[in-house]
Amino acid sequence: MSTPIKALAAFGSKQALQAYEYTPGPLGDDQVEIAVESCGICHSDLSMLDNDWGISSYPFVPGHEVVGKVVALGANTKRHKIGDRVGLGWNSGSCGACPQCLSGNQNLCPTAESTIVGRPGGFATRVRAQWTWLNPIPEGLDANKAGPMFCGGITVFNPILQFGVKPTDRVGVIGIGGLGHLALKFLRAWGCEVVAFTSSDAKRAEALELGAHRTLNSRDSSDLKRAAGSFDFILNTTNVGLDWNTYIAALKPKGRLHTVGAVLEPLDLAAFPMIGGQKSVSGSPIGSPATVDTMLEFSARHGIAPTTETFPMSRANDALEHLRSGKARYRIVLENDLGD
Amino acid sequence: MSTPIKALAAFGSKQALQAYEYTPGPLGDDQVEIAVESCGICHSDLSMLDNDWGISSYPFVPGHEVVGKVVALGANTKRHKIGDRVGLGWNSGSCGACPQCLSGNQNLCPTAESTIVGRPGGFATRVRAQWTWLNPIPEGLDANKAGPMFCGGITVFNPILQFGVKPTDRVGVIGIGGLGHLALKFLRAWGCEVVAFTSSDAKRAEALELGAHRTLNSRDSSDLKRAAGSFDFILNTTNVGLDWNTYIAALKPKGRLHTVGAVLEPLDLAAFPMIGGQKSVSGSPIGSPATVDTMLEFSARHGIAPTTETFPMSRANDALEHLRSGKARYRIVLENDLGD
Repeated sequence: MSTPIKALAAFGSKQALQAYEYTPGPLGDDQVEIAVESCGICHSDLSMLDNDWGISSYPFVPGHEVVGKVVALGANTKRHKIGDRVGLGWNSGSCGACPQCLSGNQNLCPTAESTIVGRPGGFATRVRAQWTWLNPIPEGLDANKAGPMFCGGITVFNPILQFGVKPTDRVGVIGIGGLGHLALKFLRAWGCEVVAFTSSDAKRAEALELGAHRTLNSRDSSDLKRAAGSFDFILNTTNVGLDWNTYIAALKPKGRLHTVGAVLEPLDLAAFPMIGGQKSVSGSPIGSPATVDTMLEFSARHGIAPTTETFPMSRANDALEHLRSGKARYRIVLENDLGD
Repeated sequence: MSTPIKALAAFGSKQALQAYEYTPGPLGDDQVEIAVESCGICHSDLSMLDNDWGISSYPFVPGHEVVGKVVALGANTKRHKIGDRVGLGWNSGSCGACPQCLSGNQNLCPTAESTIVGRPGGFATRVRAQWTWLNPIPEGLDANKAGPMFCGGITVFNPILQFGVKPTDRVGVIGIGGLGHLALKFLRAWGCEVVAFTSSDAKRAEALELGAHRTLNSRDSSDLKRAAGSFDFILNTTNVGLDWNTYIAALKPKGRLHTVGAVLEPLDLAAFPMIGGQKSVSGSPIGSPATVDTMLEFSARHGIAPTTETFPMSRANDALEHLRSGKARYRIVLENDLGD
């Protein structure tokens, strides 16, 4: 389908989105085109809109938590057929031939393509991706809420699986937002003892409903110090600088502090406590296509879905402002009203 | 045996060792006393002598790489009998009842006792330790060279085992000294591709003899940059600040930068590269008693021994100066000539 795509784009850093139409070239042999039904908003849509990471190009079409229906298939695609409902997240392509791709770690492909970097995303009537990066939405998942699983969800699910978090572990989640609230749901279903770290009084009560057994104040160092030596795994979902060494101290021996939050400041880690306690610090991006499938299956089985607010896509600017002001509870989904 | 022990002690920070005699109290029920045959010198003996870590007390008796023969057994000791030849390393006791001790990670016991912290070490005619922390020297190991295995050796062997380094991995070792030279030997026998990072021209050639397949200049950033994305595991054995982010960049996706070197400056780690490549940074101390046994058995089977220089213990001050000046190749062992 080379007919024009109606989208919303910013024409410069931090500018409001405007109606924008573009005509895609011929569909690539390994590409699938989907008609967008809905699209979540991730904090990284804001970071890209604002060019916080210096990798944005304009016109910039946000949107990388897409649910839609397959409307066109390239010659060499597999897995999907016209009419299938699929999801698309941060990645929209990978090389397929590097050691990472060949070993099933396509998310770590050094030349992976990102849905909203240098190409238009999902705030649009249609969007394209390599077939590999579209996952079928399984029975039992509410498609209207599934979009945020494809970036926010997989970003927190992936390290839980990759680093072998066990149901017997005590796990902390720092930051109860779009990512953190899903982490609480996954970890509760995983069987863990779940502790939410938040600085928001309002969120402390909500965190318990989302899956936390208890909460700690992330900005109260006495709260943190009392927790010394008690966590197996702490997952940071915020992108602000934290008192990393106090969180390291909160880990048990052999514990891990893991960040998926894109913190810009360096982590100033003292080596001694890491050495003495055999502790690790790590990070990770979104997961591989196979891990996305695993997450969707696990979520359907446990009735896990993002807690969402809905805006029509035509009001995306209002929705972005709602997110920017910290009011989103907990993930915004835009329903496509831009047309076909 | 409550007869006096002849030792060498410093009476203040950075002072020369002098003859020092002390009478130990009654032997603890879980303690073993050994007659020292030899004792390696570790860089941490210098750090403790100089009070670099603020935990030294004086008179300070260095020495935590001891080989000796059992001469007295407390009432509740197991495993050893009079006359057995055993080794003693950094730890000389652990509580036995905490979760770490109960799960075989006695090296991570929060109240573990250290051989040279607040008690006299192995530059002496005799030294004591909890029976748990004395390991029999197996057949096939040269006892005169075994001392350095109990701190330098286990410190680098432990993470290789703990973090699942595979024979198919490409592993880098930063710093080719007392610890690094043993890491090269272990990793070569482990089946890995082994790369030595050193700033010393003289050591580049020697590193190849010690087990490295090739060398890189640890202070030449172009050398490091060319290595981007190529290492599964990098082991830092130095205690100086490094360009950590360049080493992170040298890791493959899912790679690990691990430090056993007691670096005092914070590690200023950028989060983005760790997130994008799912990379980890970690530290570890010496290993558990069971891991020491595993190391000794592996070393005997592969003919691995420290490369040593020998001094009589009465010349410990000369030996310490030799180490301090960076001339040791690669580990100094003091042979006990202080008497019985």
